[in-house]
Amino acid sequence: MDHLARPRLVIEQVSPTVDGGEYAVKRIVGDTLHVGAAIYKDGHELISAQVCFRKVGSSEAHTEPLVYEFNPDRWFAHFVLPEIGDHEMWIEAWPDPFLTWRRDLEKRIEAGEDITGELREGAKLVRIRSKSLPEERVEPLMNAARVLGNDDVGVETRTRVAFSQTLKELMYGPLEPGDLLRTRFYPIRVDRKEAGFSSWYELFPRSQGTTPGVHGTFADTERRLPEIAAMGFDVIYLPPIHPIGVTHRKGKNNARVGQPGDVGSPWAIGAAEGGHTAVHPELGTIDDFRQLVRAARDFGIEIALDFALQCSPDHPWVKEHPEWFYIREDGTIRYAENPPKKYEDIYPLNFWAPEAGGLWEAARDALFFWIDQGVKIFRVDNPHTKPLSFWQWCIAEVQARHPDVIFLSESFTRPNRMQGLAKLGFTQSYTYFTWKNTKQELEQYLNEITRPPISEYYRPNFFANTPDILHEYLQHGGRPAFRIRLLLAGTLAPVYGIYSGYELCENEAVHPGSEEYLDSEKYEIRVRDWNAPNNIKRDISKLNSIRQSQPALQVLTNLAFIPSSNDQVIAYVKYAPGGVGSHLLIVVNLDPHHVHEANVDVPIHHFGIAETDSYIVRDLLAGTEYTWKGSRNYVRLDPTDKVGHLFEIVRPA
Amino acid sequence: MDHLARPRLVIEQVSPTVDGGEYAVKRIVGDTLHVGAAIYKDGHELISAQVCFRKVGSSEAHTEPLVYEFNPDRWFAHFVLPEIGDHEMWIEAWPDPFLTWRRDLEKRIEAGEDITGELREGAKLVRIRSKSLPEERVEPLMNAARVLGNDDVGVETRTRVAFSQTLKELMYGPLEPGDLLRTRFYPIRVDRKEAGFSSWYELFPRSQGTTPGVHGTFADTERRLPEIAAMGFDVIYLPPIHPIGVTHRKGKNNARVGQPGDVGSPWAIGAAEGGHTAVHPELGTIDDFRQLVRAARDFGIEIALDFALQCSPDHPWVKEHPEWFYIREDGTIRYAENPPKKYEDIYPLNFWAPEAGGLWEAARDALFFWIDQGVKIFRVDNPHTKPLSFWQWCIAEVQARHPDVIFLSESFTRPNRMQGLAKLGFTQSYTYFTWKNTKQELEQYLNEITRPPISEYYRPNFFANTPDILHEYLQHGGRPAFRIRLLLAGTLAPVYGIYSGYELCENEAVHPGSEEYLDSEKYEIRVRDWNAPNNIKRDISKLNSIRQSQPALQVLTNLAFIPSSNDQVIAYVKYAPGGVGSHLLIVVNLDPHHVHEANVDVPIHHFGIAETDSYIVRDLLAGTEYTWKGSRNYVRLDPTDKVGHLFEIVRPA
Repeated sequence: MDHLARPRLVIEQVSPTVDGGEYAVKRIVGDTLHVGAAIYKDGHELISAQVCFRKVGSSEAHTEPLVYEFNPDRWFAHFVLPEIGDHEMWIEAWPDPFLTWRRDLEKRIEAGEDITGELREGAKLVRIRSKSLPEERVEPLMNAARVLGNDDVGVETRTRVAFSQTLKELMYGPLEPGDLLRTRFYPIRVDRKEAGFSSWYELFPRSQGTTPGVHGTFADTERRLPEIAAMGFDVIYLPPIHPIGVTHRKGKNNARVGQPGDVGSPWAIGAAEGGHTAVHPELGTIDDFRQLVRAARDFGIEIALDFALQCSPDHPWVKEHPEWFYIREDGTIRYAENPPKKYEDIYPLNFWAPEAGGLWEAARDALFFWIDQGVKIFRVDNPHTKPLSFWQWCIAEVQARHPDVIFLSESFTRPNRMQGLAKLGFTQSYTYFTWKNTKQELEQYLNEITRPPISEYYRPNFFANTPDILHEYLQHGGRPAFRIRLLLAGTLAPVYGIYSGYELCENEAVHPGSEEYLDSEKYEIRVRDWNAPNNIKRDISKLNSIRQSQPALQVLTNLAFIPSSNDQVIAYVKYAPGGVGSHLLIVVNLDPHHVHEANVDVPIHHFGIAETDSYIVRDLLAGTEYTWKGSRNYVRLDPTDKVGHLFEIVRPA
Repeated sequence: MDHLARPRLVIEQVSPTVDGGEYAVKRIVGDTLHVGAAIYKDGHELISAQVCFRKVGSSEAHTEPLVYEFNPDRWFAHFVLPEIGDHEMWIEAWPDPFLTWRRDLEKRIEAGEDITGELREGAKLVRIRSKSLPEERVEPLMNAARVLGNDDVGVETRTRVAFSQTLKELMYGPLEPGDLLRTRFYPIRVDRKEAGFSSWYELFPRSQGTTPGVHGTFADTERRLPEIAAMGFDVIYLPPIHPIGVTHRKGKNNARVGQPGDVGSPWAIGAAEGGHTAVHPELGTIDDFRQLVRAARDFGIEIALDFALQCSPDHPWVKEHPEWFYIREDGTIRYAENPPKKYEDIYPLNFWAPEAGGLWEAARDALFFWIDQGVKIFRVDNPHTKPLSFWQWCIAEVQARHPDVIFLSESFTRPNRMQGLAKLGFTQSYTYFTWKNTKQELEQYLNEITRPPISEYYRPNFFANTPDILHEYLQHGGRPAFRIRLLLAGTLAPVYGIYSGYELCENEAVHPGSEEYLDSEKYEIRVRDWNAPNNIKRDISKLNSIRQSQPALQVLTNLAFIPSSNDQVIAYVKYAPGGVGSHLLIVVNLDPHHVHEANVDVPIHHFGIAETDSYIVRDLLAGTEYTWKGSRNYVRLDPTDKVGHLFEIVRPA
């Protein structure tokens, strides 16, 4: 029984972590990482502990001492994350007989004890420690030990050495190497700013022309950049831009059989002109695309691409690599099915086929291809229909080479699988936001995703609509509904987006009860008047501009709902993150059809305001100010005028 | 890149677990273990999963299929724990293309499709599966494949085979061995009934005589058994029974210097007569002790011993094994200190001394010695002053040989360390209960320890007093205070205890502000009249008898506090566990000095009672019944009469 091989102490309940270190915690570069742990051992001996942090692959770690706090009986440290990329942290702790000895020595001196014996004990500790140190540090330690242990030297001198800062620093660390306990590595993924804060705009390039029925191009898209930039968006996301299959091409409004001239769904990827690394000829050339990327960049806008791993029957891979598909007993390739429904225009890929190793690499290499064209954001289509292991591998491969690449998971599935995709590496995720329209639904859902454990790894991207989701709330709520959902999306989540047409309050469904758009752009070209009457572009510009200037709207976890006396009026605070910027109070009328009044209970004690104090709240949307007093205050919201207040708390009055 | 080596699915959020499987979940034999997990994969393919469970060291596992529940998006199974000892469980899951094929086949048949091609696909699955099965199961599978795949056989016959129960059972399991995903082992500790439900009585054998000043014996203790059994206790715990050191022996009331004739503290273990495996001669012989253990057993009572790993300077180990102690620079052994306080009557043991391996074994062997004398419960003194690694090793060693041994941790320290001792193996733990006397304190503390994660591993033993803790609530509250705390201890926790003298309401502290008893038995012999006036033995008997007959008082996690309109009146429900026995409603006046009234809100909807229903509540303490109606009902508690109600919910009226 080798008792000396057993650990001297316990380190546990390390935070932040995801599933005990199985997956990475996500943070943004420049964030302060707050590390905590429960660390304990037997007896009354002191413990020393530190957190170590380094880039994956680096041999040098940053260390930060952990400090014990009696309440809540945990050790803490914090430091700023200086760089994007994959990192790891771990905790080290050791019994500290030297500090214990110093603490006790102090008490003995206070009690007037004879400490010469104790000084000799100290010398012994110093000698033991010196044995495991590099040579250059041994000499000063041995000198200290000689003074401490020498009864011929005056006690005053020896005491001075005992309490010297130099000796304390030299003695920092485990007395003997075996005393050290080290935890596992806990991964920390540090992303660039845009991963945590950005405003998305989705558009179909083929609809960006000005003549109805004429296929739009990258050049047409480029012409829209000033307008999109003026709305304040910083990411434009394009559905697939690849050649579109012709076999079994779908018609308008998802008709099973298309008509001559139908342009097909961009998600039916691949044709004679190429597959996942080719550009649909009617959009332009690869150079046109690169030009669009460059032009957008000049407006502070990034182009995000769709990454949809599926093939039309005309995709080059079908001929080149039939072994990457599902082969039926009769030798044909299996099209997509959800029995008894058939999707003959799509061949799913078989990632688990014995010979599909090349497919995994080809898929990854398609990403590298677009990265080379200047694309650093990918919106991944239905990732939950491809192996989880594939994404874990693929994202790690890409981010190892390009740590600034952002992956957005477009997955609407059961919660654990949706969150699982975020755990394994997706930078951002689509959410259930479009289906949360009541106060109770919103509060419950936001309370869940803005707090640990989920908030440690899952970054919501609140799209207010998508080409697949026109919620009935928007179908029936008119212009006020679009303004309400815009305000909610843009203030509840630091990352949000709209799909073009939203600014025009497009709300016609293909049929009652469906969330599909009538004459959906997924199957045809739609040319619009982007300045049509009743558009809400001013609301969008205003909101995005406020988001830029208010740090409180740039983080996720600073949200707190507050009581309002009316179930149709939702109210919440976004606290100034780390004390930077203003605290914001947002009050929204959720009913697009009626005026509502409410009393809201402002958490003034968090703002340093007393119940008897007056203070000013400034509505950043309307530019108006109100003088409020105490916690309970009155609001009235007419959805035809103001759907909500976005108050900056200004104090005192 | 070997894509086939990567997992096909994810298994996570397994419950119950402690720290992700690092420590054992604790249960009682006969308990139903409810297992849950999140399991998911990509795509629409079905998953099959099972939980496996076995005794540590056994090669055979019990398996139970896991069943998916849409809400809360988790898989569940449950089974009864048949045996005490260390167990492990794990979860296995695999993609199930066969079940998926059957599901889709059913849909295709409903849709009237030609399924002959699909039947051939099924035959292919059956052939693949047969490759990894033992020979005796291959033949029936190959037969089935031949029928399924043969277009000359009628579709009806082939369909019957496809949906046959036999084929389903043969196909249960991963299609190919590599498809299986298996989690780590999660330890499950199964203890005997008494670990989770028992009533403790602590006594000093030397005080059990009848003549003041005369040292009591094991035989005297034996004479008290009928009375203790009549009170309803099933564990008698004895402070150390070993020879007591004479060097620096403490005097009465912890006087630093003892007087001739002082009996010393039983925790100053070891003298010329022996150490941790010897009996103090004045108590009797080892045979007398064995006789006490036997006699107690006849009354349904177990004798629990103290296990205090420290030595008086006279302990045999001091001479035999000086290397197990702390040796100072001058060669002397270091006594216990908390500078500037000195405890010269105690030598702490140095478990980390390089030569202390033998100490670890000797300490374990002392336990084996007492187990051989019939002792199966050990109350461990201050375990947090000995290495955590030692306890983890020692408890595992003992329970591997004697799975029915119970360890009670007497540790009062910071929460993480206290809970850490429970995690590493202690069966039961002392608690902060004595210091929780207000309604808010009690509710907060009980809500914490009766729920996961803590309740998975930490079994509280609610001592109402100990030789070290006479809380001021008892010092000043008189007889009502003792009855109140008894009722709370015995109904809030399935394991509780009192230290003898409690039944006599002994409440004199050594000095104001101290929790120490005046003339504490720790340092002297105290002979008492166990039938002194105003004793509360009838309360104790009644309570313990109710505890025996009410399953709701025998488990920990069925507690729910309910609102009461008076801060001095606490109210809680103990739900019938697994529907066995009655639901109980306990209402206690926490103020020993005054009458209090309250309205309590009974959670009648949980009892199947409507707001308009009348129902009977029967006070099991007083034997009286009341007819109540609806949720809100009135109570009045006079602490000189009834300190509380212990209602059985009886319905309807």
